[in-house]
Amino acid sequence: MKLLNSRILVIIGLSVWACFLFRQPAFAQLINFSKQDLIDYTAQNPFGRLPDGRPKVPDDLIERARGLSSEEVWEVLQNKHFNNQYADGFQVLHPGKTMVGRAFTVQFMPLRRDVDGVAESKAKEHGIARLENQTAIDLLQPGDVLVVDLFGKKVDGTIVGDNLFYYVMQATHGGGLVVDGSVRDLQGIAEIDMPAYFRSVDPNPIDNVMMTGINVPVRIGNATVMPGDLVVGDREGVYFVPPQFVQEVLDSADETHIHDEWTKKKFAEGKYKSSEIYSTPADSKLRQEYQEYLKKRLQELRRERAAKKPD
Amino acid sequence: MKLLNSRILVIIGLSVWACFLFRQPAFAQLINFSKQDLIDYTAQNPFGRLPDGRPKVPDDLIERARGLSSEEVWEVLQNKHFNNQYADGFQVLHPGKTMVGRAFTVQFMPLRRDVDGVAESKAKEHGIARLENQTAIDLLQPGDVLVVDLFGKKVDGTIVGDNLFYYVMQATHGGGLVVDGSVRDLQGIAEIDMPAYFRSVDPNPIDNVMMTGINVPVRIGNATVMPGDLVVGDREGVYFVPPQFVQEVLDSADETHIHDEWTKKKFAEGKYKSSEIYSTPADSKLRQEYQEYLKKRLQELRRERAAKKPD
Amino acid sequence: MKLLNSRILVIIGLSVWACFLFRQPAFAQLINFSKQDLIDYTAQNPFGRLPDGRPKVPDDLIERARGLSSEEVWEVLQNKHFNNQYADGFQVLHPGKTMVGRAFTVQFMPLRRDVDGVAESKAKEHGIARLENQTAIDLLQPGDVLVVDLFGKKVDGTIVGDNLFYYVMQATHGGGLVVDGSVRDLQGIAEIDMPAYFRSVDPNPIDNVMMTGINVPVRIGNATVMPGDLVVGDREGVYFVPPQFVQEVLDSADETHIHDEWTKKKFAEGKYKSSEIYSTPADSKLRQEYQEYLKKRLQELRRERAAKKPD
Amino acid sequence: MKLLNSRILVIIGLSVWACFLFRQPAFAQLINFSKQDLIDYTAQNPFGRLPDGRPKVPDDLIERARGLSSEEVWEVLQNKHFNNQYADGFQVLHPGKTMVGRAFTVQFMPLRRDVDGVAESKAKEHGIARLENQTAIDLLQPGDVLVVDLFGKKVDGTIVGDNLFYYVMQATHGGGLVVDGSVRDLQGIAEIDMPAYFRSVDPNPIDNVMMTGINVPVRIGNATVMPGDLVVGDREGVYFVPPQFVQEVLDSADETHIHDEWTKKKFAEGKYKSSEIYSTPADSKLRQEYQEYLKKRLQELRRERAAKKPD
Amino acid sequence: MKLLNSRILVIIGLSVWACFLFRQPAFAQLINFSKQDLIDYTAQNPFGRLPDGRPKVPDDLIERARGLSSEEVWEVLQNKHFNNQYADGFQVLHPGKTMVGRAFTVQFMPLRRDVDGVAESKAKEHGIARLENQTAIDLLQPGDVLVVDLFGKKVDGTIVGDNLFYYVMQATHGGGLVVDGSVRDLQGIAEIDMPAYFRSVDPNPIDNVMMTGINVPVRIGNATVMPGDLVVGDREGVYFVPPQFVQEVLDSADETHIHDEWTKKKFAEGKYKSSEIYSTPADSKLRQEYQEYLKKRLQELRRERAAKKPD
Amino acid sequence: MKLLNSRILVIIGLSVWACFLFRQPAFAQLINFSKQDLIDYTAQNPFGRLPDGRPKVPDDLIERARGLSSEEVWEVLQNKHFNNQYADGFQVLHPGKTMVGRAFTVQFMPLRRDVDGVAESKAKEHGIARLENQTAIDLLQPGDVLVVDLFGKKVDGTIVGDNLFYYVMQATHGGGLVVDGSVRDLQGIAEIDMPAYFRSVDPNPIDNVMMTGINVPVRIGNATVMPGDLVVGDREGVYFVPPQFVQEVLDSADETHIHDEWTKKKFAEGKYKSSEIYSTPADSKLRQEYQEYLKKRLQELRRERAAKKPD
Repeated sequence: MKLLNSRILVIIGLSVWACFLFRQPAFAQLINFSKQDLIDYTAQNPFGRLPDGRPKVPDDLIERARGLSSEEVWEVLQNKHFNNQYADGFQVLHPGKTMVGRAFTVQFMPLRRDVDGVAESKAKEHGIARLENQTAIDLLQPGDVLVVDLFGKKVDGTIVGDNLFYYVMQATHGGGLVVDGSVRDLQGIAEIDMPAYFRSVDPNPIDNVMMTGINVPVRIGNATVMPGDLVVGDREGVYFVPPQFVQEVLDSADETHIHDEWTKKKFAEGKYKSSEIYSTPADSKLRQEYQEYLKKRLQELRRERAAKKPD
Repeated sequence: MKLLNSRILVIIGLSVWACFLFRQPAFAQLINFSKQDLIDYTAQNPFGRLPDGRPKVPDDLIERARGLSSEEVWEVLQNKHFNNQYADGFQVLHPGKTMVGRAFTVQFMPLRRDVDGVAESKAKEHGIARLENQTAIDLLQPGDVLVVDLFGKKVDGTIVGDNLFYYVMQATHGGGLVVDGSVRDLQGIAEIDMPAYFRSVDPNPIDNVMMTGINVPVRIGNATVMPGDLVVGDREGVYFVPPQFVQEVLDSADETHIHDEWTKKKFAEGKYKSSEIYSTPADSKLRQEYQEYLKKRLQELRRERAAKKPD
Repeated sequence: MKLLNSRILVIIGLSVWACFLFRQPAFAQLINFSKQDLIDYTAQNPFGRLPDGRPKVPDDLIERARGLSSEEVWEVLQNKHFNNQYADGFQVLHPGKTMVGRAFTVQFMPLRRDVDGVAESKAKEHGIARLENQTAIDLLQPGDVLVVDLFGKKVDGTIVGDNLFYYVMQATHGGGLVVDGSVRDLQGIAEIDMPAYFRSVDPNPIDNVMMTGINVPVRIGNATVMPGDLVVGDREGVYFVPPQFVQEVLDSADETHIHDEWTKKKFAEGKYKSSEIYSTPADSKLRQEYQEYLKKRLQELRRERAAKKPD
Repeated sequence: MKLLNSRILVIIGLSVWACFLFRQPAFAQLINFSKQDLIDYTAQNPFGRLPDGRPKVPDDLIERARGLSSEEVWEVLQNKHFNNQYADGFQVLHPGKTMVGRAFTVQFMPLRRDVDGVAESKAKEHGIARLENQTAIDLLQPGDVLVVDLFGKKVDGTIVGDNLFYYVMQATHGGGLVVDGSVRDLQGIAEIDMPAYFRSVDPNPIDNVMMTGINVPVRIGNATVMPGDLVVGDREGVYFVPPQFVQEVLDSADETHIHDEWTKKKFAEGKYKSSEIYSTPADSKLRQEYQEYLKKRLQELRRERAAKKPD
Repeated sequence: MKLLNSRILVIIGLSVWACFLFRQPAFAQLINFSKQDLIDYTAQNPFGRLPDGRPKVPDDLIERARGLSSEEVWEVLQNKHFNNQYADGFQVLHPGKTMVGRAFTVQFMPLRRDVDGVAESKAKEHGIARLENQTAIDLLQPGDVLVVDLFGKKVDGTIVGDNLFYYVMQATHGGGLVVDGSVRDLQGIAEIDMPAYFRSVDPNPIDNVMMTGINVPVRIGNATVMPGDLVVGDREGVYFVPPQFVQEVLDSADETHIHDEWTKKKFAEGKYKSSEIYSTPADSKLRQEYQEYLKKRLQELRRERAAKKPD
Repeated sequence: MKLLNSRILVIIGLSVWACFLFRQPAFAQLINFSKQDLIDYTAQNPFGRLPDGRPKVPDDLIERARGLSSEEVWEVLQNKHFNNQYADGFQVLHPGKTMVGRAFTVQFMPLRRDVDGVAESKAKEHGIARLENQTAIDLLQPGDVLVVDLFGKKVDGTIVGDNLFYYVMQATHGGGLVVDGSVRDLQGIAEIDMPAYFRSVDPNPIDNVMMTGINVPVRIGNATVMPGDLVVGDREGVYFVPPQFVQEVLDSADETHIHDEWTKKKFAEGKYKSSEIYSTPADSKLRQEYQEYLKKRLQELRRERAAKKPD
């Protein structure tokens, strides 16, 4: 094909490259979800992105999110009609410890050798030796929470034991783990200071499954999780907050915290019936008192935060 | 109607008044159970009554009841053939903390707008602005335990969040909560020092239900609870003790405590097989030893109690 | 009391009578819900009433209702925001046989001897020998469906065996039974031609419960049932339709039947994609065709019904 | 860009075209799985393909498969170590009727408006008006079985009512339905002669979900289903047979049928202990008798089949 | 040992023989329960015995028992305080078909190779080739019902497929099967006319278990079953009747049948409230009427039975 | 019988004695499993035996076993194809406290008075006053773990309350309790420092069951437990280790501990991906580093252990 000089080849190459860049799955995994897909489907992300394309909720917002509870997230998401972002029914490893971080998602399906064989071959072509839980775990970043769809599997559905749990803690800087499946080595895991939410515990290592996607959309209980969602876990369960709502959730939570503070203060005075104070004071004077309290405390909060920030 | 002079009118008025006084529901609520009904159906109550008609187990007996465990209540009620006074299967908020108090009952049913509309209208006629969870909560008294039938509802079945839970603690002086339903804000609730028994936790506030009765007979699991029952909760579950059995339960528990004390002391000596000591010593000398121990300890207990009482 | 002459006595008597008539529970049962309460809380009933105060959905509408399915009821009630009128999860005795009738409700609670003793005494004062399942069953009328809250009880929660089931069939003219509890003698019951919905089956007769109300509001699963509701049961579950919606449900069902008829006819032609026909034809000509079909068939239906009616 | 003459443009165009042809999802759906992906991952398919890329198990094999039972499929797949191709725990609509056909898969996830908005926009760019259950249903072919992942959802998880169920029957020529979710209008569906396997029934139409993939790999219970798998359903549950094993399964089933025939015949003689005959005759004469029977019956079977085939 | 002449040796031999005869397990199975044990523990058996030591409820009583239902058995056993002879929660293969026969029990436990190895060796010493489900099945007698404890196991807990189910039918003359475990080949089994009660269905053959006892006491749900018990299964569940109560159960059932007959006849007249007739007529004339009816029908029944018996 | 002189009588006596010694159940209990049976079925036991015939895993190995976790046991047993030695799903009394000891097994079945009556009579002949939970408990030895099959019974299935739990702690020197059933007096039990695993808690004392075997093979969940097994319980569940594998499990656990130690140390360095280190280092230098570490630490461990031993 003489006609094609190098310049043309470059162009063709580019078009093919573009084709591959945006469409090609990260690991030739069964469930395709390219970096471009991720960017397209999280287009409302107001923040920057991680190199793998995931929205990057900024570190300082993640820090602020440590004060969140399920109810505070609920309020904002409910108003936006995002009712499927919450999952519960987990065993909570450290009930007093809030989990906060960016969702790094992994999907498994029941092993099917013909399909897995193709995926493994494709992976090898891309220089990936094997497709397994560690393939995903090795890609974790600081600030991540590992979110795994193992379809509720107990036996053979143990995403990590204590060694890999320790690694996840190191790699994510204590981010956390949510698995719709199980863990093993609970005895060892219990001593490691990272939040974790799992369905069950089993001594058998992971088996009879195939890893079908890294950073693809996954379902955890009744929640649809996108890579890069802000994950917030407390004693009750786990919220997956789309990045576009993070700022509003945090600002709203500030008000809720102050509102709770004031409400309990008034209750502690022992002079009021609950309905005179909560949820909104019945009396206009009390409403004004609250408004002033809110204003003052918000200012204090902002000052505190400003003081904490490095210049 | 000339015939009716004022005196007669008074009489008629009285009869009508009586009719209303005893038959009219407290809040024109769907499930009628008037003060007179309450008095009739708890006629065996040996103590005084609260202004709302509930039996008032005396404060000092409530204090003594803090030492009770499920088994001790079981023994007396079983002998009386009261087998339906126990409920378990709850999440226990503070497993080490016994719950004791007088049952203040609330009943909810699935919302039905035609019925609820009538109830709300009737309530307004009696000066009640709304029929909702706070309507009941605002009536709580020191020493009460709030007992709520929310028919096991999780989503939308959250009787309180942390603010109202805090209010309940203040109003009942730390009495407690039993709900055949859920709570929200577990993160906040966990920090509040009041016993609580609930089926589940959910971030959604209470919704899609109607309050159908305050201080009416309610069912919690397999137990029938009457307003004013002594509520006793430990790690296992919750007992609802009819007032007429409270004194006997407490006296019997004194003996059980001493029996357990002595039994363990003998076991600790390491000289006996369990059946030589428990439940009744086989040997007559040991039986006598126990009887003397029991007598001595009972006297000590009574002396201690007398000493504690204000003169 | 000389002052009171007979006329005055009559007046007082009347007021007391009124007081008793409207407030007094039918059987001095634990859960009060007088005839007047029933009338008040079902004030939207557009039909007449049975002697016991229940709304009386007319016989011809009950006959028409035999053609209803769950989905058709759902549509109207959903639009009215009556979302808690459906219960499922039952064993269905005769899956092919629709159940239709007026709700006759009965409530049981776990036996509590002190309370039950008072109720039985009160009942005796009103000439009722015993408070038990047959007390309620003996009051059933033709066209009734017996709706029983036995709080899901299996063992000892058997509302009827085959003898009483046969009696219910006779008394209600084949109305039906819904019990949030169990039945016994399934072998015998299976041979009797009356629809029945129950949670489970057990050989033990009813025991360890007390009947706490006849024709009171009851909860069956997540539904609030009022006496006189139109009960509609099919293979899926049971709807409890407030009387004020019965006419609209039936008229709407006529249209749904015709719509389904036409839709399936068009599908059978094999020329259309489902979305071209269902739920609304995309094409304006098809829409017109449907409108004409609907009009014609509605007229036919009405003519048929008119023909059936006795003059 | 003068340099690019038309010939080169064609080449570039082709490469881009190829890029789109093979990588672009069928409906710009959230879960990408292009025709080329499908071809790659089902590369062991020994048969032709449908226009949408799915393996096409031939019609005559599908007919033969009507005689299969779960156990017969199990035997071959077990030997191949394909242990995750079976799902059970369904309500079976017509227990006596075997379901056989080619898997047409559909995946749903809990609704998430930001993601669904992007998918809908992308779909519109490709000329698809809406992404919903009917989008998939309208693509069904004769011989298909509709296989739907609705993640076990009951309320709002009803893939079809009786109208669309009727359409599916028409479009697939009675193929069938497997849904890890629910159906509505069971009353109407029960009268339609097509096999169906569902988890539950509910009167609410499908809602609060988004369709995320058509003919993508899906999980049904513990089975991984690929588009084009041979679906075989009997009273017990459903098998999803990879096309490469279909011939072997059918041939093996012929032998199993004959083996069962002979075994029962021998048992019916009443002369043998079960272990003398089953699973393999202990006696060499009996083994020989069986071998001859097998040979004869296999020949008869083949002759029958040949006779049935159109020339 | 010269001292021992042959006569003495015979004696010793006899004592050893007796020792082995009565103590030695039938198949050197893990759970010992010798013929003598069986005779000792069923000493109240009023009938003869089968060669294996099981009580032999006579054939004519078994025939009469076909008319029994669960409730009728319940009544007699309840009176005897035998409350643990009933099991339910099964899938019932042929709901309209009563199961009646003598319990032939088999017990399995989770496979443990060290223990199973010893059992198999011991079995070989007694001429038993293998210990497996067919070892037991091959011992079934006409009139037996196979009762199997497979501890609720679904996967790998399938006691029979259709071939062995057919054998059991042949060997027991249609007796029946109760398994606290599963069956396979339901498609084939459903066509065979023998009653069966099982927990679940699975395509995997029995595996990963060891047979630990034949005709030993077994637990099925909450029932303790002894070999030779009369097994009675109807739509509800299964009763295991100790032989000593069989006659009384049957006689009592005759009266119950007549009582039900008469009760329904009176109900059908439409003149009585249920409580006037059932369970005992309130009116003395009716009571007399019933007594006469009972007497007459009992005589008829006896005459019919006598007529049926071969002379 | 003149012929038999005393010497002969001795011989016969011996043979009968042997017969009884080895065949006779310990307590004439329903489920026979003689000392000889126990010895036969645990023939692979490499250690000595307790006087009751149970294998006696030596005390120092029991001490070493306190460091075991479920996973470490799993690894060795899995390799031996002993997959049914693990049970979970328990409430764990003291989650941080490992349970280790020799299995002392007890079996209960639902009470059946005819059978129990025979067993009690036989027991009395052997000088046993009653067959009940304390009969077994009184036989416990230091180092035992009480393992009880109460077939998952909650109500009436409470093996111990706090008094007997205290006794078990004293008698076993803090060994532990595993019950497939319930306990009572949780309030009191929670204060006693002994590990316990139970299914549920209930206030009713044990009732309506009969003790059918002491130190017989029992099933706990999916595990077959033999008397004398090494019981190891951690936060996850309980392993029952056949004595013949104890040494290997412990030696293997030493390596696992060191491997985990080294793996976490490398992870803590933050230089490696998980797959570079775990489960086996990819790099040969790292592999060598690990081998040297392992060798050194094993030597240290052995030295430590030698130092601890009394000379």
